[in-house]
Amino acid sequence: MDIDKNSYKLYALRILPNGTSVIVKPEETILEALLRSGISVASVCGGKGICGKCAIRIVSGSLSEPTLQEKRWQKALGLDIRLACQANLLSDAVIELSETIETKNIKILTLGKKVQINLSPSTTRKSILLSKPSLEDQKADLERVLAELNTNTFDSLILEKISKVIWNSNFNVSAILFDDELLDVVPNSDNFSLYGVSFDIGTTTVVGYLYDLLTGELLSIKSSFNEQIKFGEDVISRIEYASRSYENLKNIQGAIISTINKIIKELAKETNVDTSKIYDVVCSGNTVMTAFLLGNNSFYSSRSPYIPPFTSQVKVKARDLKVEINPSGYVRTLPCVSAYIGGDVVADILVSELFKYEDPVALIDLGTNGEVVIKNLNEIFAASCAAGPALEGYSIRHGMRAMEGAIESVTISEDGNEVFFKTIGNRKPVGICGSGIVEALAWLRIRGIVNKSGKLLENSSRVKKENNELQFVLVDEKNSGTGKEIVITQEDIRKVQLAKAAVLSAFITLSKISKTKVEDVKKLFIAGAFGNYIDPFYAMIIGLLPEVQREKIVQIGNGSGMGASSLLLSKELWRESIEVAKKIKVVELNLVPSFRQEFINATFIPHKDEALFQRTLKSISSLREGEKNYDS
Amino acid sequence: MDIDKNSYKLYALRILPNGTSVIVKPEETILEALLRSGISVASVCGGKGICGKCAIRIVSGSLSEPTLQEKRWQKALGLDIRLACQANLLSDAVIELSETIETKNIKILTLGKKVQINLSPSTTRKSILLSKPSLEDQKADLERVLAELNTNTFDSLILEKISKVIWNSNFNVSAILFDDELLDVVPNSDNFSLYGVSFDIGTTTVVGYLYDLLTGELLSIKSSFNEQIKFGEDVISRIEYASRSYENLKNIQGAIISTINKIIKELAKETNVDTSKIYDVVCSGNTVMTAFLLGNNSFYSSRSPYIPPFTSQVKVKARDLKVEINPSGYVRTLPCVSAYIGGDVVADILVSELFKYEDPVALIDLGTNGEVVIKNLNEIFAASCAAGPALEGYSIRHGMRAMEGAIESVTISEDGNEVFFKTIGNRKPVGICGSGIVEALAWLRIRGIVNKSGKLLENSSRVKKENNELQFVLVDEKNSGTGKEIVITQEDIRKVQLAKAAVLSAFITLSKISKTKVEDVKKLFIAGAFGNYIDPFYAMIIGLLPEVQREKIVQIGNGSGMGASSLLLSKELWRESIEVAKKIKVVELNLVPSFRQEFINATFIPHKDEALFQRTLKSISSLREGEKNYDS
Repeated sequence: MDIDKNSYKLYALRILPNGTSVIVKPEETILEALLRSGISVASVCGGKGICGKCAIRIVSGSLSEPTLQEKRWQKALGLDIRLACQANLLSDAVIELSETIETKNIKILTLGKKVQINLSPSTTRKSILLSKPSLEDQKADLERVLAELNTNTFDSLILEKISKVIWNSNFNVSAILFDDELLDVVPNSDNFSLYGVSFDIGTTTVVGYLYDLLTGELLSIKSSFNEQIKFGEDVISRIEYASRSYENLKNIQGAIISTINKIIKELAKETNVDTSKIYDVVCSGNTVMTAFLLGNNSFYSSRSPYIPPFTSQVKVKARDLKVEINPSGYVRTLPCVSAYIGGDVVADILVSELFKYEDPVALIDLGTNGEVVIKNLNEIFAASCAAGPALEGYSIRHGMRAMEGAIESVTISEDGNEVFFKTIGNRKPVGICGSGIVEALAWLRIRGIVNKSGKLLENSSRVKKENNELQFVLVDEKNSGTGKEIVITQEDIRKVQLAKAAVLSAFITLSKISKTKVEDVKKLFIAGAFGNYIDPFYAMIIGLLPEVQREKIVQIGNGSGMGASSLLLSKELWRESIEVAKKIKVVELNLVPSFRQEFINATFIPHKDEALFQRTLKSISSLREGEKNYDS
Repeated sequence: MDIDKNSYKLYALRILPNGTSVIVKPEETILEALLRSGISVASVCGGKGICGKCAIRIVSGSLSEPTLQEKRWQKALGLDIRLACQANLLSDAVIELSETIETKNIKILTLGKKVQINLSPSTTRKSILLSKPSLEDQKADLERVLAELNTNTFDSLILEKISKVIWNSNFNVSAILFDDELLDVVPNSDNFSLYGVSFDIGTTTVVGYLYDLLTGELLSIKSSFNEQIKFGEDVISRIEYASRSYENLKNIQGAIISTINKIIKELAKETNVDTSKIYDVVCSGNTVMTAFLLGNNSFYSSRSPYIPPFTSQVKVKARDLKVEINPSGYVRTLPCVSAYIGGDVVADILVSELFKYEDPVALIDLGTNGEVVIKNLNEIFAASCAAGPALEGYSIRHGMRAMEGAIESVTISEDGNEVFFKTIGNRKPVGICGSGIVEALAWLRIRGIVNKSGKLLENSSRVKKENNELQFVLVDEKNSGTGKEIVITQEDIRKVQLAKAAVLSAFITLSKISKTKVEDVKKLFIAGAFGNYIDPFYAMIIGLLPEVQREKIVQIGNGSGMGASSLLLSKELWRESIEVAKKIKVVELNLVPSFRQEFINATFIPHKDEALFQRTLKSISSLREGEKNYDS
């Protein structure tokens, strides 16, 4: 089994953008070399060249001849594209991991690279050595500290402890301030610590980020279902519930505070952080989530003329909300703009820095409530659209949240009878999450199993009728983690069509109102936890996203959570957020006469007007090349 | 029994300062005429001319010849003085009720006359008619209100209710503001009301004043023992208790908050006021009482170098202290100056307006902790003295608070064997309150039953020994409301001597430090609830107050409570109080080398140095004239 190393040629493969090099053996594919070297590259079809997940871009070097599969993907994605699972090296080479492959890392990249902020949290520590009192200097304990800090505002809880702390610590203390307000005083020590938590409060999912406020370091991320879901899946049904009685309102408020406290507890437990050292919580959410958090039922948001209860930035003592951090600390919420353009959109805009571009740019936040923002000619237009929870895996027959065992990626073989998939954590599949649903529908369309109208056709062995409804079997009983088939039903497809039509029609309507040609858009930012995990290529195939060139798309990840984090870490941004919120012009889509028709046109896959998706349709043809055309 | 009305001459008696006229029959004394006409005049000795309580000043008219008793009082108080119980009219006449008689009304006079303030409470109402929202005007509910009020600060509790209130009231609402902060919004109505409560938090007694903040009207006054008494009678013992454990501290804080809540409840019940319409509570108290209220144990106040925990004005949300008013309202405390010069002294200074005088002026606050303030040469000096609770009726064998059944006034017959007294509410006596104790000691001294050193002499049938201690029987078993004798013991007299020496020696020491001659003092303000009820004449006889001319003395009543009330009603004064507090120079008497000796000298009655009380000693002689001299 010995190999003659002298005659055996190894190639060096340099990988951009980070510049890592790996050794590639001549007999192994690039994918095998990458996986062997510990570089995680998605592959759904198991190296069959179908899924396109391992697409790489060749910068220099000589490779094996492209296979038939690769040629199809080159037509779809560009001639410099190769599939790592198909290609072998013939020389040293330099490749770029395509953005498709990068997707999984974007969340971290966004934190470290995209949001350039100066660490300047509102909550700070100041170490002070006080002069000692005497009969000649009888200045009071509190005023001794305030004078040293050059401030005169303080939290009243400090009155109880100030004397004990400064005398016991021999007048060597650390002050914790929120802006100019003295929140707390603790003995000086080497292991002093100070934390903050930012939250993305989604209608369906709540994500918390624990930060070290002294270093800006992200220590942990935890997420959980929003416990309000038991009172209704969407904001409208929750508003109806909350408006029925004061008790219901308190239940709704209690549910989100319970969710927040649970996440804080988990964050603290994992990192061994004392929750009393957390002094700041910044929450980003849509207008209704923000209102519920602060105890308002949002009743008048839900009916014409759609008046939100409040839109200002809010700062509340943690003890007033029973949020379990230091009771002198604050819970803050972002400014909102209107009943349906909330702090989460302001956060997206801050993170994308969309307002700084001269050229037309756009942003789509994909969530239970989707939002579209277009900046053109010094104006920022925004509209919201009720996408519903389908894209987050909720309300779909076998839909689930993006957690272990969820099918996150899908490919369907040329004949439509074989399904390749990848689950989170590589466990046996127990359901399908949002990104899996998008890819499944995209491949059903590519393979012609679903037609332009979204109708399931009975041209695959996997399409069958149950209870008078057509469904496509993704996973059979044998391979399923639940012991039951995992399917996508005609009803599921209809829900996804409505969800994606809501987003696409909002974009098209807003682009017309803002006089923006889609081809002129220089950047299209995609936000939302879900928006971070989908493959824009497939999102265009189903017409969830408008057709723009791949390189213009920037997935900013959870813009809401990142925005909240940025505001936690930067008081300048906290102030800037008010200005940003003021600049936004809200478009009420329901008042735009053409919107209804735009919505209907957008339910087609990708759209009724094929001229809007020319390149996408060409890609579909490329991937089908050499296959019979199932669909007219 | 018929009287010939034609030959029967009735005289008209006009009474200054208010100008009321009454008819006087020739055979009745002026006292009888006054009482018959419903004018309340004090009389302790029952018309025997001994007590001097019914002294009047003659402005014009002809009266019967002065009796022997009257001649004595004329020597003591002035030649224009007559005793209403002794004099008959011989013509129409004009008299002035002496300040001695006015005493009982001073409290009300102080409220209405002495404190001239412009009604400008920090807590205000603003009635607003909002424009109605529409699809063209989607401004949020809160921001609609804030814009109308031209502010952007608000209490977070308003977020819960704002929408409901403004929509249900058809956008016709009243805003309640604290300065610029929006506290609450309620539907507009004709019977809108807005209240505030001011508190004098004494070590022994707490007094609450309920005000209508729209009119400035005082609606009710209620007082109660400070529930902290169960943890110690004076501040030092309470500090010791509170410093022993966190639980004790919470007990101390809980006791004062419970006292406050009890008084608020009583005030509200009596006036039928809804406590949720009370939005502001201003508390005046000494530094330790203020610290306890806000949860600090004041430990370092009680030992050298006597450092108070804080001295700033404090503003705390009522909900944070569990004070039972509107939870969005505030509890505020006055600025303090040092560990023993507290907000109550600042209040006294504000009420007396002492800081506005060019000439030397002084202020003495009589309470468990006494304070002395002297303004001279543009400087304000202040010192505190631990008088103890004796002058408030506490710690005296049969001492009690000034309530029904308490002996408030005392006279002793020439032979020293008969005691005349008056009780509050004219009930059977059950004990003796502060003013009664002062008068009893004064008469014991006048009658020579107590000597200059404070020793009880066995020269009256009422002096007897029990358990080896001398005591003077004020009331025998038969006439007592308790069925037991009411006595003043030698020990009681010693306690009063120590209390009065603390005050007098503080005054003398401070006058030396401030280079103020007592005879140059243009006004001597007497503050403190107890200070309001004592007769300055007798207070000088025992040497509790320094000897100044009677007309220079201004009893300002409960300066602490009045000061708190003024700050409740005037935001200008609230700001001014900070400046006043800054101007005060605190003198630590314990650090003044001569103080110890001054204190000892001041324990004599009235003082060891008789030159300091020449006029007073002359008055004593006058009242004794014709009697044998018991005492050298």
